[in-house]
Amino acid sequence: MPYYIPQSRFISLIERKVCMAEIAVLRLGHRLPRDERITTHVFLTARAFGASRGFYSGQTDSSLEKSISSISENWGGKFPVAHEPSPMKLIRKMKKEGWKVAHLTMYGLPLPEVQPQLASAKKLLVIVGGEKVPPEIYEAAGFNVAVGSQPHSEVAALALLLDRALQGKELERAFDSNFGGKVKLEPSAKGKKIRGR
Amino acid sequence: MPYYIPQSRFISLIERKVCMAEIAVLRLGHRLPRDERITTHVFLTARAFGASRGFYSGQTDSSLEKSISSISENWGGKFPVAHEPSPMKLIRKMKKEGWKVAHLTMYGLPLPEVQPQLASAKKLLVIVGGEKVPPEIYEAAGFNVAVGSQPHSEVAALALLLDRALQGKELERAFDSNFGGKVKLEPSAKGKKIRGR
Repeated sequence: MPYYIPQSRFISLIERKVCMAEIAVLRLGHRLPRDERITTHVFLTARAFGASRGFYSGQTDSSLEKSISSISENWGGKFPVAHEPSPMKLIRKMKKEGWKVAHLTMYGLPLPEVQPQLASAKKLLVIVGGEKVPPEIYEAAGFNVAVGSQPHSEVAALALLLDRALQGKELERAFDSNFGGKVKLEPSAKGKKIRGR
Repeated sequence: MPYYIPQSRFISLIERKVCMAEIAVLRLGHRLPRDERITTHVFLTARAFGASRGFYSGQTDSSLEKSISSISENWGGKFPVAHEPSPMKLIRKMKKEGWKVAHLTMYGLPLPEVQPQLASAKKLLVIVGGEKVPPEIYEAAGFNVAVGSQPHSEVAALALLLDRALQGKELERAFDSNFGGKVKLEPSAKGKKIRGR
């Protein structure tokens, strides 16, 4: 069979009339121990909001990679995370392969103004900055995107950008069926309902 | 004068046709040094996304309070942060004063299903959990709200909830004029444009 979509996913795509883009997230300049939890939150948010893989530059962190892969093991889906010593090389390579590149920065253009281009991308690389982002990143990015123009959090900024790129689909119950996984939650008005553990 | 709205804010409200709710954020069980950066991100996100004050329980952290107040000093607006030794007492008091209470938990009801109630609240207290949230919080909350049903980040969850409560207004250029502040950014396709410093 030359082309195969699992039936459940196929039906779910038709029902939701969504052509899901392929999304990757690149986190720049990871520092230990300072960024340990924030970078974990960046990748968990990326995974939960529809991205399919992560890259990071800066210090290598096997504990970060392990904690993301153990979440995927239990909660489903695949979200490989790889260390990338040369982010500019990766960006150039992905641009050649047809990826649109969005860089999150509060200095950029307001998210609502670039949303149509983000939502129509087939392959989207989202760059999440670190302490000091070199000017070449601003130059290489097709879109420098501001999520508000106040200082807040790269995790919040990433969440909103992915939400707008996926047009809110990541919050729907059906979206969760993309993950599979050993553990599943049942939405509940009070308390906790867990299935499959 | 019995009732006064500064003219700039009044015009801005008319232009945007927004009746802004009063929003407060309560972070439970702050632990040092583990939660230092995440709680900072929680409050910066709350501030940038339209909340007007923060409370936290757990360990007192004067450096957290100072870093948020120094951001407000430079970037405008007021966002007082207070330690609250008894969060349940605060929740009961605020409920009596007419606040709706939303508790962020991945076990709750999907955000899109409770959005109308959140968006119509005049006074909204958002509770952001910590390591172990006692069952009484689930009971006290009018809404237990799930931002997706995958594990990710309280910062991302808070951002999405506030976005839906404010219906995206926090991303508009006009929203920024609510803050005032010594520093202001000029949106830019490439590079950085800073005014007033």
